[in-house]
Amino acid sequence: MDLVIKNGTIVTATETYQADIGIKDGVIALIGQGLEGDVLSPLSLGTVLDRTVLDRTVQGTVQCQTTRGLSKGDEVIDATDKYVMPGGVDVHVHLEMTIGDITSGDDFTTGTVAAACGGTTTIIDFIDPSTALRLCSGQGSGRGPQPGQSLHQAVADRRLQADGCAAIDYGLHLTATNAHPETLAEIEELASAGYTSLKLYTTYPALMVNDDQILNLMAVAAACGVLPIVHAENHWVIEYLKKRLLAEGKTGPRYHPRSRPPLAEAEAANRVIALARLTKCPVYLAHLTCRESLEIVRRYQAQGVRVYAEVCPQHLLLSEDEYERPGFEAAKFVLSPPLRDSSNWEPLWHGLAAGTLHVVSTDHCPWNFATHKQRGRDDFTQIPNGVPGIETRVPLIYHFGVNEGRFSINKFVELVSTAPAILFGLSPRKGTIAVGSDADIVIFDPHKERTLTKENLHMNVDYSPYEHITVRGYPVMTIARGKVIVRENEFVGQVGAGELLKRKPFRL
Amino acid sequence: MDLVIKNGTIVTATETYQADIGIKDGVIALIGQGLEGDVLSPLSLGTVLDRTVLDRTVQGTVQCQTTRGLSKGDEVIDATDKYVMPGGVDVHVHLEMTIGDITSGDDFTTGTVAAACGGTTTIIDFIDPSTALRLCSGQGSGRGPQPGQSLHQAVADRRLQADGCAAIDYGLHLTATNAHPETLAEIEELASAGYTSLKLYTTYPALMVNDDQILNLMAVAAACGVLPIVHAENHWVIEYLKKRLLAEGKTGPRYHPRSRPPLAEAEAANRVIALARLTKCPVYLAHLTCRESLEIVRRYQAQGVRVYAEVCPQHLLLSEDEYERPGFEAAKFVLSPPLRDSSNWEPLWHGLAAGTLHVVSTDHCPWNFATHKQRGRDDFTQIPNGVPGIETRVPLIYHFGVNEGRFSINKFVELVSTAPAILFGLSPRKGTIAVGSDADIVIFDPHKERTLTKENLHMNVDYSPYEHITVRGYPVMTIARGKVIVRENEFVGQVGAGELLKRKPFRL
Amino acid sequence: MDLVIKNGTIVTATETYQADIGIKDGVIALIGQGLEGDVLSPLSLGTVLDRTVLDRTVQGTVQCQTTRGLSKGDEVIDATDKYVMPGGVDVHVHLEMTIGDITSGDDFTTGTVAAACGGTTTIIDFIDPSTALRLCSGQGSGRGPQPGQSLHQAVADRRLQADGCAAIDYGLHLTATNAHPETLAEIEELASAGYTSLKLYTTYPALMVNDDQILNLMAVAAACGVLPIVHAENHWVIEYLKKRLLAEGKTGPRYHPRSRPPLAEAEAANRVIALARLTKCPVYLAHLTCRESLEIVRRYQAQGVRVYAEVCPQHLLLSEDEYERPGFEAAKFVLSPPLRDSSNWEPLWHGLAAGTLHVVSTDHCPWNFATHKQRGRDDFTQIPNGVPGIETRVPLIYHFGVNEGRFSINKFVELVSTAPAILFGLSPRKGTIAVGSDADIVIFDPHKERTLTKENLHMNVDYSPYEHITVRGYPVMTIARGKVIVRENEFVGQVGAGELLKRKPFRL
Amino acid sequence: MDLVIKNGTIVTATETYQADIGIKDGVIALIGQGLEGDVLSPLSLGTVLDRTVLDRTVQGTVQCQTTRGLSKGDEVIDATDKYVMPGGVDVHVHLEMTIGDITSGDDFTTGTVAAACGGTTTIIDFIDPSTALRLCSGQGSGRGPQPGQSLHQAVADRRLQADGCAAIDYGLHLTATNAHPETLAEIEELASAGYTSLKLYTTYPALMVNDDQILNLMAVAAACGVLPIVHAENHWVIEYLKKRLLAEGKTGPRYHPRSRPPLAEAEAANRVIALARLTKCPVYLAHLTCRESLEIVRRYQAQGVRVYAEVCPQHLLLSEDEYERPGFEAAKFVLSPPLRDSSNWEPLWHGLAAGTLHVVSTDHCPWNFATHKQRGRDDFTQIPNGVPGIETRVPLIYHFGVNEGRFSINKFVELVSTAPAILFGLSPRKGTIAVGSDADIVIFDPHKERTLTKENLHMNVDYSPYEHITVRGYPVMTIARGKVIVRENEFVGQVGAGELLKRKPFRL
Repeated sequence: MDLVIKNGTIVTATETYQADIGIKDGVIALIGQGLEGDVLSPLSLGTVLDRTVLDRTVQGTVQCQTTRGLSKGDEVIDATDKYVMPGGVDVHVHLEMTIGDITSGDDFTTGTVAAACGGTTTIIDFIDPSTALRLCSGQGSGRGPQPGQSLHQAVADRRLQADGCAAIDYGLHLTATNAHPETLAEIEELASAGYTSLKLYTTYPALMVNDDQILNLMAVAAACGVLPIVHAENHWVIEYLKKRLLAEGKTGPRYHPRSRPPLAEAEAANRVIALARLTKCPVYLAHLTCRESLEIVRRYQAQGVRVYAEVCPQHLLLSEDEYERPGFEAAKFVLSPPLRDSSNWEPLWHGLAAGTLHVVSTDHCPWNFATHKQRGRDDFTQIPNGVPGIETRVPLIYHFGVNEGRFSINKFVELVSTAPAILFGLSPRKGTIAVGSDADIVIFDPHKERTLTKENLHMNVDYSPYEHITVRGYPVMTIARGKVIVRENEFVGQVGAGELLKRKPFRL
Repeated sequence: MDLVIKNGTIVTATETYQADIGIKDGVIALIGQGLEGDVLSPLSLGTVLDRTVLDRTVQGTVQCQTTRGLSKGDEVIDATDKYVMPGGVDVHVHLEMTIGDITSGDDFTTGTVAAACGGTTTIIDFIDPSTALRLCSGQGSGRGPQPGQSLHQAVADRRLQADGCAAIDYGLHLTATNAHPETLAEIEELASAGYTSLKLYTTYPALMVNDDQILNLMAVAAACGVLPIVHAENHWVIEYLKKRLLAEGKTGPRYHPRSRPPLAEAEAANRVIALARLTKCPVYLAHLTCRESLEIVRRYQAQGVRVYAEVCPQHLLLSEDEYERPGFEAAKFVLSPPLRDSSNWEPLWHGLAAGTLHVVSTDHCPWNFATHKQRGRDDFTQIPNGVPGIETRVPLIYHFGVNEGRFSINKFVELVSTAPAILFGLSPRKGTIAVGSDADIVIFDPHKERTLTKENLHMNVDYSPYEHITVRGYPVMTIARGKVIVRENEFVGQVGAGELLKRKPFRL
Repeated sequence: MDLVIKNGTIVTATETYQADIGIKDGVIALIGQGLEGDVLSPLSLGTVLDRTVLDRTVQGTVQCQTTRGLSKGDEVIDATDKYVMPGGVDVHVHLEMTIGDITSGDDFTTGTVAAACGGTTTIIDFIDPSTALRLCSGQGSGRGPQPGQSLHQAVADRRLQADGCAAIDYGLHLTATNAHPETLAEIEELASAGYTSLKLYTTYPALMVNDDQILNLMAVAAACGVLPIVHAENHWVIEYLKKRLLAEGKTGPRYHPRSRPPLAEAEAANRVIALARLTKCPVYLAHLTCRESLEIVRRYQAQGVRVYAEVCPQHLLLSEDEYERPGFEAAKFVLSPPLRDSSNWEPLWHGLAAGTLHVVSTDHCPWNFATHKQRGRDDFTQIPNGVPGIETRVPLIYHFGVNEGRFSINKFVELVSTAPAILFGLSPRKGTIAVGSDADIVIFDPHKERTLTKENLHMNVDYSPYEHITVRGYPVMTIARGKVIVRENEFVGQVGAGELLKRKPFRL
Repeated sequence: MDLVIKNGTIVTATETYQADIGIKDGVIALIGQGLEGDVLSPLSLGTVLDRTVLDRTVQGTVQCQTTRGLSKGDEVIDATDKYVMPGGVDVHVHLEMTIGDITSGDDFTTGTVAAACGGTTTIIDFIDPSTALRLCSGQGSGRGPQPGQSLHQAVADRRLQADGCAAIDYGLHLTATNAHPETLAEIEELASAGYTSLKLYTTYPALMVNDDQILNLMAVAAACGVLPIVHAENHWVIEYLKKRLLAEGKTGPRYHPRSRPPLAEAEAANRVIALARLTKCPVYLAHLTCRESLEIVRRYQAQGVRVYAEVCPQHLLLSEDEYERPGFEAAKFVLSPPLRDSSNWEPLWHGLAAGTLHVVSTDHCPWNFATHKQRGRDDFTQIPNGVPGIETRVPLIYHFGVNEGRFSINKFVELVSTAPAILFGLSPRKGTIAVGSDADIVIFDPHKERTLTKENLHMNVDYSPYEHITVRGYPVMTIARGKVIVRENEFVGQVGAGELLKRKPFRL
């Protein structure tokens, strides 16, 4: 064994139990009890199992000791009183995303380092066109995908930005902005190559596809095991409202949510699910935010439609009240779909608990308030959309989900790790603690309290939407493919160690 | 290791992967790759993992060899091309159930042997009053719980029937027929003793509790981590209809379903969930059968109510058309709630796939057609209710669920094993394949075809409701706490080896 | 003609138009244009109808002149700029209702005078047992129905209280508190005699019927054209909560709503509608108050179930915030079901507009705050339930419904007059302006503003729940069977002129 | 009086009563009892009203005598044992509609004569572009509206086809195919001129408007009291399916319904209602056909959205089974949206009964089977869409609605006459029997049986979709603005007497 994690409480999407984990060559090689270094002592197994200690409440003082193993120089981590959970999988992030001439704060280096510090060991980003030149601290040097490119070229260009720059493994979603026959053929080819998800936008002029295109894209996606991810908002509703608001002189950031009401989201959600149903294609709704959309998802699921949906922490924890902040500060919360009325919070949490919503991801897209966001000072429609979140997802969902009694710790693991891994073709390699899986593991201290502030977070952005929120429960160590890469909130891994993931086709 | 299962494809509720399992003292002691007998060879782990073989489709000819290990005399099972899944958990069975002067066909011996042959390694039965004298082939000799007893006495009496008679581990649900203060106190005591579920009936004069009683029982249940299981049918609706039907001379078994319409079930379901919500008590609906009830469950879940529900294979696969059989044969299908219109099938399957319904159990209650069922020849209300099913659940749900594309094999494992174990306080001991869990394992051959007939089934009853249905995929070996107890449909275990399970409190 | 109403704008449930009305012998004998006294001048008809004046907005200063006709001594009322609408029909009032040793403030005299002043010309009260001795100013002298009586005797006793005392016509609903065969037979007989509605209570120990009784009562009701009216609240939920609240020392009126949550109402509503569906009996839900019940009604209607529902002004306009009033004042608002969260208001208004809810009635039951309500000063469960409202219904619903744009004036007429008349077997005699119908007519001034205060209202009670609300639009004249009985908020009619109404069977 | 209708039972949307009607100058001048010719004898009123005869069941033999009045030469119609109801209002018909080089069978003359024979006295047709040259038997000579025209010009061109040709009064809906600023201005102007409804198509390339256009059109419509009528089907879904079907060689008429599934309708319905909600515009859904759409309408209404919907007899009475007819005969039933599964029938009827659906209209569009329909012999997409129905609506809905117990005769009148008149700005002139209203009256014999066949119907088309259906209850006389125009199924009126109706703005 290269590494042994001892005495921890393993938490998966279905079980909580005590066992030790042996890691070899980056993979979980053994799970057992009483493992010592790479000397396995099965004879001690008879003594162990007191089921009463499997209790999920971990008590007593906790310290995470990482010590070198006594024999043969292998590392042993003592995870007594800690949870040992699969590393987080965040399937909705935007690193090094360019809009016009500005690029979001985090590139594949800073973004993945922050992710790792927050307990996430896998991300999936997008191959949207229009991402422009940026050099990461590693070897990346691409200018990113450009409009009008073939998908293959876009993949290649995006990989120039990502490959060799990431601290953790990453996947890339395809993005289709047309349904030309060549594009359809490319999707099929790229699916075979492991790109088994496809982002579709129903708004943003440079990106959007219409119903006709969606139908043809979904037909191909269904045929080759590709899962469409849809940003669902009715473009024309938004345009209509934006125009009216601006014409009325309503240019401040507080008007942003009024230009993108729940109705715009729910209408588009209903439409794309209908199109998915018709083409017998599964569909995954990105960043669902409101009761109206949730109810639509629920109804289609009841009819056997394979619709999946994610919700982001910001829509579970922040409300449109933020837009009432004085001055231009509301701009910090300009994202799309926008923050909603807080009456949506509990229905969304219930949706997660009940299995109607499947994933918590972040839509991480950090823009600096002092610079990027200022672009829209005189016109809210020019504010770059997005909030940072790649680092805070795991602790926020643990705290507000598990500590506050909304669901079990197993459901928590399912939402932040297992379910996204399954849906996006990464299971069983990612998203679980099982023999043969990558040793992407988080040692999580349920008693560790931390107040979230820009200062102790690692994202490359000048604010946090969760500033001053205190959470109880935080990752104290992050292991990626068998290497410890974060210790006590400090990145100790190697940039560039993260590899591009080839993903399996979507299956039921 | 006492036993090693090699080369199989492990299937849990969330993952499908290849690994070997080492079993010691009845417990899963190690999961790894390349295990050999009890000589562990971790060095070979570097060679293994080709993720492409994790594919769920298992091809080629399959044979399940059980050979003695070469070294140290330990058994090695070669599970190449087989699924290795947690043994089934059937939380709704009625063994040795007495109604009046007749007792259902299976006692704890024949019933658990049949269960094991069908891939089930844990059952939970009931401590209903009125179960009368029956001697099992083992040491049991009780006459069973009697009306008016204390719960403690009922437990003791029921244990006389079960203890020492079962081939697999078993739990017992409490049954409350009143809400006297002493009864409430007993529930609390028995919860501490591991009886953490409580059956409530809304019909059957000898058993039923009214809203007032349900409220007080649920309040106590919520306080001490007991999960109420409710048989939900409106008693007065049934009485009203029975009386009318009999008065009209409609005495044949075909009138049974007309005496218990979906409306009676849905009304009671709605009511008990409302009462559960009020008392902040979780609730588990037994044998949900119809769209109407399903929709109610879905709505409450959307509001954050912790309502869980099971469906039985008979309600997924058989319809009220069976009641049109000639002569008295319809009596074979008299159970409550009755079989429904087949238009309910797909909504129920969708409910399972979508997570609205959580468990498939059997409500196994075998009455011989030639004798027991004849009691109602002149009056359908006198036909003893129930169908056999303890042995056929696992293969039926695999065949009609997985083979027919309704859900994944992981969802199948969840429904027949993992979810019931979690809900009834048995996780992680039962319901999964994890280190420290009981080695209750089924070797399942996905290519094995079997036509279900009374002759090749082991239940002690003279008919099968599924006669002549052919399934593909069948257990070829069943292991209970590390012992092989079924090989190729033949019981090779030891009656009496099954133990009473002390269960944990219900938690979120 | 005895009376002619000229120049008004007639408003019915479907039309708004200008025409004159000729009344003879208490009945509408003619509708035409240009009528003069009892000299009809059809030749003037050629001038007719400028449809542009049919516009619903009535402008200009308005005065209601009642002048004696020039010829033959007949009265002519000039209703220029006024609405001429059918008198209100309030099908849910409790006059002279006795609970224990106290009797509600209004008897059939004061109550019907107040009703008339508020624009209501027909009421339907109940024949509940336990209504005790009270003498009206007229000839009534009954001690009211008593528990255990036959329905016939109860009818007779109730009539002693009502007959000869009322200022307007009245009906009486039967009330069943058991389902004995004799009771069922009586219902059938009394239906033939014009008592075609039947109140059922699911709570209140002295009154409540259980599911068994409801089924048998509904079966008879369906057979003989009787419409059950159900007070739907789950009795056991209320008892459970009351007991807990009192045990916790929560004895003040603010705890009243917590003892009767929406869940208790919705559960009972769902149940009784299910029972109605089973027995193919129509059903009318009294005082529906909340979203939950509304949604249930909507779902059953979608399935073709004939369920009707009323809502009362208090539940549309007042909220549970009233229970936060200091001291004991909250007791003024203690009624059942209680006032709800204000988020229920708009759904209920929408329900009325969309036709899901059919009737606005009052549940008028006035208890003096200074005396009656004080009974519960130390225990909210002892506060007599009810609020006054018989007089304020019509103007409140006009103001908040029509003036505030929630529905048309025709829908308003439907809700307060036409629909209740139809549902309770009074159409076309009551509830409309049509030839042959009783001349029960309200002259309504849409510009008349009035601030509602105890002082200018006529109900015999010491407070108004709507104190200080100002409405625009008020009855300026009320005509009952051709006689002007209210002029400018002053009763000028004759007590005792009101007659008991024989009602037709319920039909689709 | 010019005409007096005596002794009939007047039926309106809310009442059934007995009275006589005096008509002068085409308008209902008087309603009273005992009217004789134009000598009014109010003194006879004292004999009045035995309410027991108001019973809706009319018994005895019935004969409709039309005799000249004895005095002063005025006509008196004896309507003893007949219903006297407002003439039908059919707000969805396509007369003289041109598609390419073919024109539908009925022009404004034959169509309105047939309508009158079937009991309809008002129609509203469309001003769709592309209607080409056709000469009616009267003075019309237009070639109809053309693509690219201004709305004013289209109105003028359409009027050339209609004016002077119709036997009954008619309205015309505007149709917008773009949202140019000039078009928006025209809508406002034409609204003032009495064109207060606007057809919008979401499919058909020559006609369809997209979301952007719909939003801007609805904003204007809301502002000027215009009610949008939407043909809701998702165009791209239809195109996608058509293409696939044709590519698979599925060219026969039986594939028509598969190209336009309920999902396409429901998606578009949901979308346009959402857009209406956003713009605070009421919206009227044309020809709703299925449960899915119905449920959407119901949900929006529950939220206070003013959405109205019509259903056509073909979707209540015929099913997709018709498409299984041998040979090409299925083409007779090719219309859009297509006939659906018969399981939709009862939900739609329930929707009408419950008030969720408001209107029954026909979408009358008669194409000859022998000629027009043959165009699509080799390609179902080329079959002209539509079925005849203008003449059969009233008797079909009476028979299947009232006779079969689905709703009352008053609801029947509401659905076929009153509600459409109100929604389309014709009340109180049309759609009711009230003083001042047009004397558009149908004498309806509830006992008259007629078997519908092409031979005894008057529509100019070579088949009837209802061939051989026998109905009980039929119009025996139709009166339009005071003139008898149909007697016993024979048109005796004057072509050209029908006038264009100026309609009022839509109001709540």
